Amino acid sequence: MRVLLPDLPEFHALSGHDEYSVPGVDFGFYSHEQVPSEAADGVVLWLARGETREKLLKTPGLKWVLTLTAGIDHVQPHLPDGVALYNANRLHDRAVAVHVAALMLAAMRGLHRFRDAQHEGRWSSTSTPNDSGLHTLDGQKVVIWGYGHIGHLLEGLLTPFGAEVDGIRSGTSALQRDGLLSRADWVVLLLPSTSETRGIVNADVLGKLKPGAWLANAGRGNLIVTADLLAALDSGQLGGAALDVTDPEPLPQGHPLWQRENVIITPHIASTTTDLVARGASLTRDFLLTLQQGQEPEGRVLDGQTY
Amino acid sequence: MRVLLPDLPEFHALSGHDEYSVPGVDFGFYSHEQVPSEAADGVVLWLARGETREKLLKTPGLKWVLTLTAGIDHVQPHLPDGVALYNANRLHDRAVAVHVAALMLAAMRGLHRFRDAQHEGRWSSTSTPNDSGLHTLDGQKVVIWGYGHIGHLLEGLLTPFGAEVDGIRSGTSALQRDGLLSRADWVVLLLPSTSETRGIVNADVLGKLKPGAWLANAGRGNLIVTADLLAALDSGQLGGAALDVTDPEPLPQGHPLWQRENVIITPHIASTTTDLVARGASLTRDFLLTLQQGQEPEGRVLDGQTY
Repeated sequence: MRVLLPDLPEFHALSGHDEYSVPGVDFGFYSHEQVPSEAADGVVLWLARGETREKLLKTPGLKWVLTLTAGIDHVQPHLPDGVALYNANRLHDRAVAVHVAALMLAAMRGLHRFRDAQHEGRWSSTSTPNDSGLHTLDGQKVVIWGYGHIGHLLEGLLTPFGAEVDGIRSGTSALQRDGLLSRADWVVLLLPSTSETRGIVNADVLGKLKPGAWLANAGRGNLIVTADLLAALDSGQLGGAALDVTDPEPLPQGHPLWQRENVIITPHIASTTTDLVARGASLTRDFLLTLQQGQEPEGRVLDGQTY
Repeated sequence: MRVLLPDLPEFHALSGHDEYSVPGVDFGFYSHEQVPSEAADGVVLWLARGETREKLLKTPGLKWVLTLTAGIDHVQPHLPDGVALYNANRLHDRAVAVHVAALMLAAMRGLHRFRDAQHEGRWSSTSTPNDSGLHTLDGQKVVIWGYGHIGHLLEGLLTPFGAEVDGIRSGTSALQRDGLLSRADWVVLLLPSTSETRGIVNADVLGKLKPGAWLANAGRGNLIVTADLLAALDSGQLGGAALDVTDPEPLPQGHPLWQRENVIITPHIASTTTDLVARGASLTRDFLLTLQQGQEPEGRVLDGQTY
């Protein structure tokens, strides 16, 4: 078996001679500067963009691709027929859940506003608690739209804070969904981007929310119609938004979302941790060992769904 | 029994005629403009500063004072002999624990840095995860210095995030303490301000920490020697600090702490929530009903300690 890996120290360890290595696999390494052109059975995609990714997906003899991302919309349209696609949900799920919890708590504790005050060197205590706009998550109704593994992890993190968590799943009826949305203090988007979910949060849906509710998005930027989001923020229908993904993305300089006090933006780093590459290499190792045993590894993507 | 209450709607409800009232108590109400001068058995202190507080503590016939704060250092030195003091730890404990958890998660997810980038309209994704400086709390060693009720609540919030929590209590030996400090990724100060704890975090203690550790303070500002804190931040010995309390407090315009990227400052609002006054009135009601039954209410302060 020949496999192409990213040209990073953490992945070179797989071809070494210690406990981290995977014997019996012939490894090639690619970078933005250099993509091997000879045949390979598999490619592990990681931080490969544009032309590099296109070249890798045209590797002769390719049987499978493992993308170390959760999303697959950047790979699937370019995948040659008959090539199996795997993704790496598990690699990202926990950090994404932690990041969303951090965003929600930061919003409720006003940390974005206090950072703004810090920029001005201003001790901004309010005259009375009633006017503080500060909350905990006690008793807050959180609706997770796209309730899968990340949603389950997030629920486990939020429940000790007293949040009451519900999920909207593909089987949830429109009636149930609208009922949940109308009562939510927080709506958390964890949906993938598909033809059905693009623009799913539009003026109509935003109008169904309880006035003052907060929206979080750690799915894909294009789940939300950005113009409708801005309108809902301007009207006060939304209390605020915490966005790790945006549309357009990256958000260009001068975009109106940057300037909103009650919008908290992080640059699509929900799953990023300093040990992410090491964890990606470790997941790759498990994947290859499973293949070598003739078994189906985790993360096979069928018809745009992950199983 | 005659009792003086703050002149706020939430407290007026105690003298009303519905389920929230406390029958059989004669209530007077004070504000910064108007402090009743006639005798009373008890005073409930809330947002009373300077002269107002001094006048209240000189109320003729005073038998007890209930301060709806956690700290007592602003009341105890002015308390007349023989007057019992009660505080309201329970009112604040949970919000303080939530606030500290929010600060820690925000720091590990870089939310302060991303807010700075947002000010500049800058999408600041890093080139590789290894350089991101982003973490979760998985496997992080958290040492809570002053491990009481708040510390216990905080541990319950942090454990699901994978943090390993230890406490330093009054019975912890200096040797054990230094061992815990040297291994900590986070040191969280929840100590009260007493003659023993003032300046307890000085250059000597900061030098014992693992390089790059973070410090959080939700106790009192003067637990930390601010000049030593700045030096430890400058040398890189400290990874950063999350401070809800400072010394001096309020932190004046132009103070060097405001300008540090890796210092996160909130203006002593850890326990503040929009429903804090309502919760304070509710605690006062329970306190008075307990007194009426001839029992000792929660929160009696003896010799500077709360029991």
